[in-house]
Amino acid sequence: MKKHNFYAGPSILPQYTIKNTAEAVLNFAGTGLSLLEISHRSKEFQAVMDEAQALFKEILDIPSGYEVVFVGGGASLQFCMVPFNLLNKKAAYLKTGVWAKKAQKEATAFGEVIEVASSEDKTYCYIPKGFEAKVPTDVDYFHITTNNTIYGTELHKDPDVKVPLVADMSSDIFSRQIDVSKYSIIYGGAQKNLAPAGLTFAIVKVDALGKVERHIPTMLDYRTHIDNGSMFNTPPVTAVYGALQTLKWLKAEGGVKEMERRKVEKADMLYSEIERNKLFKPTVLDPADRSYMNICWIMNDEYKELEKEFMDFATAQGMIGIKGHRSVGGFRASTYNALPKESVEALVACMKEFEAKH
Amino acid sequence: MKKHNFYAGPSILPQYTIKNTAEAVLNFAGTGLSLLEISHRSKEFQAVMDEAQALFKEILDIPSGYEVVFVGGGASLQFCMVPFNLLNKKAAYLKTGVWAKKAQKEATAFGEVIEVASSEDKTYCYIPKGFEAKVPTDVDYFHITTNNTIYGTELHKDPDVKVPLVADMSSDIFSRQIDVSKYSIIYGGAQKNLAPAGLTFAIVKVDALGKVERHIPTMLDYRTHIDNGSMFNTPPVTAVYGALQTLKWLKAEGGVKEMERRKVEKADMLYSEIERNKLFKPTVLDPADRSYMNICWIMNDEYKELEKEFMDFATAQGMIGIKGHRSVGGFRASTYNALPKESVEALVACMKEFEAKH
Repeated sequence: MKKHNFYAGPSILPQYTIKNTAEAVLNFAGTGLSLLEISHRSKEFQAVMDEAQALFKEILDIPSGYEVVFVGGGASLQFCMVPFNLLNKKAAYLKTGVWAKKAQKEATAFGEVIEVASSEDKTYCYIPKGFEAKVPTDVDYFHITTNNTIYGTELHKDPDVKVPLVADMSSDIFSRQIDVSKYSIIYGGAQKNLAPAGLTFAIVKVDALGKVERHIPTMLDYRTHIDNGSMFNTPPVTAVYGALQTLKWLKAEGGVKEMERRKVEKADMLYSEIERNKLFKPTVLDPADRSYMNICWIMNDEYKELEKEFMDFATAQGMIGIKGHRSVGGFRASTYNALPKESVEALVACMKEFEAKH
Repeated sequence: MKKHNFYAGPSILPQYTIKNTAEAVLNFAGTGLSLLEISHRSKEFQAVMDEAQALFKEILDIPSGYEVVFVGGGASLQFCMVPFNLLNKKAAYLKTGVWAKKAQKEATAFGEVIEVASSEDKTYCYIPKGFEAKVPTDVDYFHITTNNTIYGTELHKDPDVKVPLVADMSSDIFSRQIDVSKYSIIYGGAQKNLAPAGLTFAIVKVDALGKVERHIPTMLDYRTHIDNGSMFNTPPVTAVYGALQTLKWLKAEGGVKEMERRKVEKADMLYSEIERNKLFKPTVLDPADRSYMNICWIMNDEYKELEKEFMDFATAQGMIGIKGHRSVGGFRASTYNALPKESVEALVACMKEFEAKH
């Protein structure tokens, strides 16, 4: 049976990425050696690293003055790297989910932290309105999480603020055109729209660095990775190779503009069914706040007892990874770039079929 | 032509690891999904993580009171994690190479650092004698690098010291039986004897933690990873899977005892040829200090001009990755666990053949 991969991350990657990586694990770049056992200092891997960074910049239209670094440790490590590198006295955070909250908490050890707004009061089911106007003008930076994977909310435009902007874009990078020039740092785990797990990316405005007095441990200093082309120490070779494949696929498919068209098409299809279907309702009420990447819904009150039955029904039809996070409950379908429209159609058909039975 | 992989790291892995990983990239654990796109929260991956940690402990005979954590960032990130977690006032370091030097330098931001001994005066071509007796008794820990990949030196026994011992075993873990009970922390990048690049391991004595006053960033606190079974955030899934395959192979082949027998056999074969062959000489003069993992040699003085010719000759015969590090020059053959004896025999034959031509 055809499986439909709705995992929230690590999550579906293009077949192009999977096929090429499987081949490279057996024979990388005609070397006769496996990608798993190739030196990161080999000319063949250096070419992969160089091309991945160049394509990353090209596809996101990253202006000069910015560098892309590939590191390990996940977005969670960035939660401390950002204040290590940027926080002198004061930073502002927008609390739109548990990951945003963790990022904010991490910064409190480095300086004063202003919580600009929070949606914690309603399990983060909305994006606080008018937050841009509330950002103090004397902070070293303002931190946002553009897509909240667990709760299914998303910022669909680059905020207008007068201070350096930092964004965790782990779960919506490469899903729309962003204006990189508005940001000082954009970072994320790559295991959603880009690569297998184990790679973290950061887009860094070079002249935003070097303005703090504190000692920064070598590996946590963005300059270490910029100065060494992300090869200060051994990078996560396989994940970088996977990223390159996805970037090539992205470019061939039409880039972020086409990804944006597709994500809206897929998300609209699923949100429409959730609203139409008598059994279900969305958890994010304001359409303006709804994520195009992670779509969350629960049973309507009068059908609550059918939750497990629908989960089993959908699972039996090949829907993988649609269980909602325990803090939200219900269901979540992640519709990342690599997810074909056919998978959303199959899920919608499954929802209609289940409705017809009840 | 058969390729012989002598890379220093990332480096040769068992065919078992490569074949199983390639298969899992296409279909992981019968899920119909790729290993690259599987949720780390899936029961199938949780089983991989659990088995990898259990086998890791079993094969190294790790006593109770210790936990194994898998993280990202490489051994270089451990250089700051160790002092973050253990350094209150003073630490002692043994400087046996550039990585040891980097670890030592990183610690200076956290407290007083005593350099117990150094072999920097002779490009780290030896292990300082009698260092154990020079370790102060009032330090929070004493840090060693058991194998120095670049210079081809190795500590072949667990040191006897009266203070907590910390070791970077990136390039010789799983190559001999170690007495884990002598150590507080053993860490390393996994990309030599264990897994593809992107995974870092740490064996941590749990009651050595929690004794420093400073704030430790969440991701740099070993307790975060211990408390969450290395799943606080998304682990490097593919590399953990690769590690499990290597651990299964290791156990089936006879464990670290058999690996030690093989490494001595392979290293003896190569060192003997280096000493016998009129063209070559070893860079590490004292046999007691010689690495069984990374074997370094240069041209004898009267044949210096043949260096490039031998490199080309060996490369044409399928020897990969034998160029010495630029700080040492000459040649280096890494003979990690997965390297078959046949590869060393081929290299020795190649050295003899080249000698016969001159």
